[in-house]
Amino acid sequence: MSDPVIITAAITGAIHTPTMSEALPVTPEQIVDAAVDAAEAGAAIVHLHARNPETGAPDQSPEAFAPILGAIKARADVVINITTGGAPTMTVQERVRPAEHWQPELASLNMGSMNFGLFGMLSRFPNLNHQWEADYLGNHDIIFRNTFQDIGFVLDTLQSAGTRFEFECYDTAHLYNLAHFRDAGKVSGPLLIQTVFGLLGGIGPHPDDVAHMKRTADRLFGDEYVWSVLGAGRHQMPIAAISAAQGGNVRVGLEDSIWLEKGVLAPSSAAQVTKAREIIEGLGRRAATPAEARAKLALKGGDNTAF
Amino acid sequence: MSDPVIITAAITGAIHTPTMSEALPVTPEQIVDAAVDAAEAGAAIVHLHARNPETGAPDQSPEAFAPILGAIKARADVVINITTGGAPTMTVQERVRPAEHWQPELASLNMGSMNFGLFGMLSRFPNLNHQWEADYLGNHDIIFRNTFQDIGFVLDTLQSAGTRFEFECYDTAHLYNLAHFRDAGKVSGPLLIQTVFGLLGGIGPHPDDVAHMKRTADRLFGDEYVWSVLGAGRHQMPIAAISAAQGGNVRVGLEDSIWLEKGVLAPSSAAQVTKAREIIEGLGRRAATPAEARAKLALKGGDNTAF
Amino acid sequence: MSDPVIITAAITGAIHTPTMSEALPVTPEQIVDAAVDAAEAGAAIVHLHARNPETGAPDQSPEAFAPILGAIKARADVVINITTGGAPTMTVQERVRPAEHWQPELASLNMGSMNFGLFGMLSRFPNLNHQWEADYLGNHDIIFRNTFQDIGFVLDTLQSAGTRFEFECYDTAHLYNLAHFRDAGKVSGPLLIQTVFGLLGGIGPHPDDVAHMKRTADRLFGDEYVWSVLGAGRHQMPIAAISAAQGGNVRVGLEDSIWLEKGVLAPSSAAQVTKAREIIEGLGRRAATPAEARAKLALKGGDNTAF
Amino acid sequence: MSDPVIITAAITGAIHTPTMSEALPVTPEQIVDAAVDAAEAGAAIVHLHARNPETGAPDQSPEAFAPILGAIKARADVVINITTGGAPTMTVQERVRPAEHWQPELASLNMGSMNFGLFGMLSRFPNLNHQWEADYLGNHDIIFRNTFQDIGFVLDTLQSAGTRFEFECYDTAHLYNLAHFRDAGKVSGPLLIQTVFGLLGGIGPHPDDVAHMKRTADRLFGDEYVWSVLGAGRHQMPIAAISAAQGGNVRVGLEDSIWLEKGVLAPSSAAQVTKAREIIEGLGRRAATPAEARAKLALKGGDNTAF
Ligand SMILES: [Zn+2]
Ligand SMILES: [Zn+2]
Ligand SMILES: [Zn+2]
Ligand SMILES: [Zn+2]
Repeated sequence: MSDPVIITAAITGAIHTPTMSEALPVTPEQIVDAAVDAAEAGAAIVHLHARNPETGAPDQSPEAFAPILGAIKARADVVINITTGGAPTMTVQERVRPAEHWQPELASLNMGSMNFGLFGMLSRFPNLNHQWEADYLGNHDIIFRNTFQDIGFVLDTLQSAGTRFEFECYDTAHLYNLAHFRDAGKVSGPLLIQTVFGLLGGIGPHPDDVAHMKRTADRLFGDEYVWSVLGAGRHQMPIAAISAAQGGNVRVGLEDSIWLEKGVLAPSSAAQVTKAREIIEGLGRRAATPAEARAKLALKGGDNTAF
Repeated sequence: MSDPVIITAAITGAIHTPTMSEALPVTPEQIVDAAVDAAEAGAAIVHLHARNPETGAPDQSPEAFAPILGAIKARADVVINITTGGAPTMTVQERVRPAEHWQPELASLNMGSMNFGLFGMLSRFPNLNHQWEADYLGNHDIIFRNTFQDIGFVLDTLQSAGTRFEFECYDTAHLYNLAHFRDAGKVSGPLLIQTVFGLLGGIGPHPDDVAHMKRTADRLFGDEYVWSVLGAGRHQMPIAAISAAQGGNVRVGLEDSIWLEKGVLAPSSAAQVTKAREIIEGLGRRAATPAEARAKLALKGGDNTAF
Repeated sequence: MSDPVIITAAITGAIHTPTMSEALPVTPEQIVDAAVDAAEAGAAIVHLHARNPETGAPDQSPEAFAPILGAIKARADVVINITTGGAPTMTVQERVRPAEHWQPELASLNMGSMNFGLFGMLSRFPNLNHQWEADYLGNHDIIFRNTFQDIGFVLDTLQSAGTRFEFECYDTAHLYNLAHFRDAGKVSGPLLIQTVFGLLGGIGPHPDDVAHMKRTADRLFGDEYVWSVLGAGRHQMPIAAISAAQGGNVRVGLEDSIWLEKGVLAPSSAAQVTKAREIIEGLGRRAATPAEARAKLALKGGDNTAF
Repeated sequence: MSDPVIITAAITGAIHTPTMSEALPVTPEQIVDAAVDAAEAGAAIVHLHARNPETGAPDQSPEAFAPILGAIKARADVVINITTGGAPTMTVQERVRPAEHWQPELASLNMGSMNFGLFGMLSRFPNLNHQWEADYLGNHDIIFRNTFQDIGFVLDTLQSAGTRFEFECYDTAHLYNLAHFRDAGKVSGPLLIQTVFGLLGGIGPHPDDVAHMKRTADRLFGDEYVWSVLGAGRHQMPIAAISAAQGGNVRVGLEDSIWLEKGVLAPSSAAQVTKAREIIEGLGRRAATPAEARAKLALKGGDNTAF
């Protein structure tokens, strides 16, 4: 319990669209600034996506990450985590390329296929500035594809460069899937398990859901894993608090929620990091440094990347 | 607790292949006999798939069901439930056709997309008689596709004929997905929720998993649902017992497990029904009749189908 | 899971009174016969109390056990477990004497103080034959006293003779209390933990209660313990089934329930053992022999007692 | 979730002794000041015990409360809650007298008998200033006595004056005991249920314990109850956070913990209230006012007491 808390800030993601919040960073400069601010506020890890600077649409080309990675590294000591989730509408081959090219310390890896229901947001944001936003959010047919073959492919592609993983688990099955790869000798601890709550298509945001994921991970992975949580939307801080109160780690950032509190848009991911620290420090814990996160997660270090 | 237990027998399914057990029914005659025997042993519902009588491969054409449905109806008073799951490698349009054509009292409906990992069986059955069996079981790339759009399509297609559903839920998310359709007014109680445990790609078979699914269904659906369980493979009877001990219902049959007990192949689905009844009667409960199942599930009756 | 199930039969106890069921054994001969029958039906352990042969009131004198112990030993190979619970209205000094004197392989030990609310039975049995029955059942002021000092006293008194324990745990706190003695080096594994459900004053009989006790015991004792359950009254068989379905052991007998099923009085503890075996064998398990129970629980053997 | 959080501050209690912390208020003046400060920091309720001003020993005479109650009322708008727990070594008749005499808005009521193991503190505080402290903490034979008869007696004694209750529940059984009185028509909602974690003799402080108490209360009481938590010692803030994150209320104060964070003694109950508010406000909630607490708990108002 007295371990410091690893805060991950997910800077922009692929779920929220530019119309929803002016604070959502879209251009490389905005993303870099937001990541550096989050690091300065206390995030040990930044989880990164790139976007088309004109339209704000997700862009999973290695080139899109080029102006982002080095700039962050130059300005902040922070662990860089590159998404392999991309957007749920992309192929896995497409999704893996930035992490393959840039060889970061961490890459995200989604541990199962699932529905992805973003359409609930349409009623809250009826007037969207870009046609792609309406098409994307209104899509009732999205499968976020992560078959056993896909997962094996990502592991094979990235592990040779020493990249380790943020294993995103959206339901109990994803934990069992991860245990399957562990049993097969394909991954080993310390496993950073990011349990994700409250996105339609995945497990809900109820405290009982959080408890079940924690208990299941304890049962399947014992001391081999490091627990983190991500609550979608208004569940971000409550679920972060539940985790921090029991020794877990937290992920915040505009990728996961554009809100700071009820009815108040967050001005930045850094503001959410600060809010999470209030809770963490109220609990008598503190934010982990990037060095502490690297030690805990057995990362290769920021000098061993391709940027 | 004193309610009788609705036993569903899933006669042949699409997971096990003919090489695995000689008892697996493949031809229409075998399927009919197995269903009638299961009904006589105490099953109130038979859950049906059809197969190619030559190769044993799943066949989801309406024609494949033609020689099966009427023959069962003529010989046994039992609720007929036609799969819309088919095999996880088929399209939804293909999968819905038999139920659309034959308008049964019940059809299964899978409540989310997921991985389907059958490859663990390959090591237990290294010598397969048919090439399709090896291709099918060895496939690490299967997504069992059930997007929100797919589910809506099945509901729209079948509800006009008064068919109701066995909602197959392989993880917590599937319960939340079902609640989404309930909240949208697309389905209403009594909802037959078949919680499924122990298939790789879905939630595991641990009692804690069973407890979490039950608690979540209680929380989301209260009195609007009827609970049933299906444990895969060797977990079939233990999970049936956990359900029956707390007022729930059970599904057995060779679709879900080819075993009777450790190391002993089941001679028939009927044998598993008999085994389940031993447990149920040991608990002071009894098997529900088809009429009791119809009343409990608000079914339209066996005379209102298209066969 | 394939381990055989240790069935304990609790032959007469101190909760039910003679008016409630003619099957309740009261005289030494009745108790001996009931114990032998239970053993022959499949119980590996008999848990014993003695009663006044005239009134049926609990009698915790060593002398009361004299005509019982040797007679059972002469007629059946079964592990004998002598209560130190006695009746909740007795002192601990009184309660420990029979086990101290007779040095059995097993003695029960209650792991905390608690209320004991038997008065609910009064409404079901308004006409009682003995005044002591009415006084006893109508008592709203019963504390079943088992302080830390009391527990330490029983341990000190009995462990020197090699007696081991059935640790009766009526709520979560009792598990933590046991962990306290384990941490203090006063007890060590294999610990037979009898989790008790459904007696007013203790934890309830809900499956969620069973799950919580199991999970807590797993967390506190890991591989150091052997799990058994006791459901009071009509909960006896359902809770036995939930335990047996997940590798646990079971206790039945007229001490815990006078019922065989809803509305049917059990003719004997042996009949309940037989009923439990139906469930157990339906699950593909079997009843453990006394030798298997001795091995699993590290008992000293039936020859090493003082009777 | 957007409801304000009712913070109760338990000012001095009967568990900690003066040697343990100089901040522990002992004299009437100290207790009054501490209560007023806690109210000003954001507590809507103060839970009060009295002590002998010379020795610091618990004093449960009505007279001991005389200089405290009016003085607090004169200086702060706060709900006053008088303990009927007193010290676990007192009789119930003794314990109920202050609340009977002073007719407060709230009185605590312990919902079951249990062991009370304070002796773990002896090793942390080997040198005690008063003999009573050593005798009290070293006592391994404490039963905190609250039989069904005792509870009924307290209810009968206090309800006629319109006093309502803080139902202290130290384990699952206590919730079932409360449900028993509710079913008997002796109490009705809104019931303030104070679930208590981490005191030896009661349920532990694990998040799974908190989850089980919450789930059980939800199941037994539905909308009839208001949930609050109390974590003993170092578990105070983590358990408060888990509650506040899911819509619950919190109790802090030196009665329950003398710590502010690891290794740092709390200077006052007010300091703990402030700490709890950090967490609560980080969660986007705020502290309830006394008026809001009165409305939520259906209290009679501060003018309707006998002081
Ligand atoms: Zn992402
Ligand atoms: Zn099927
Ligand atoms: Zn007994
Ligand atoms: Zn108190």
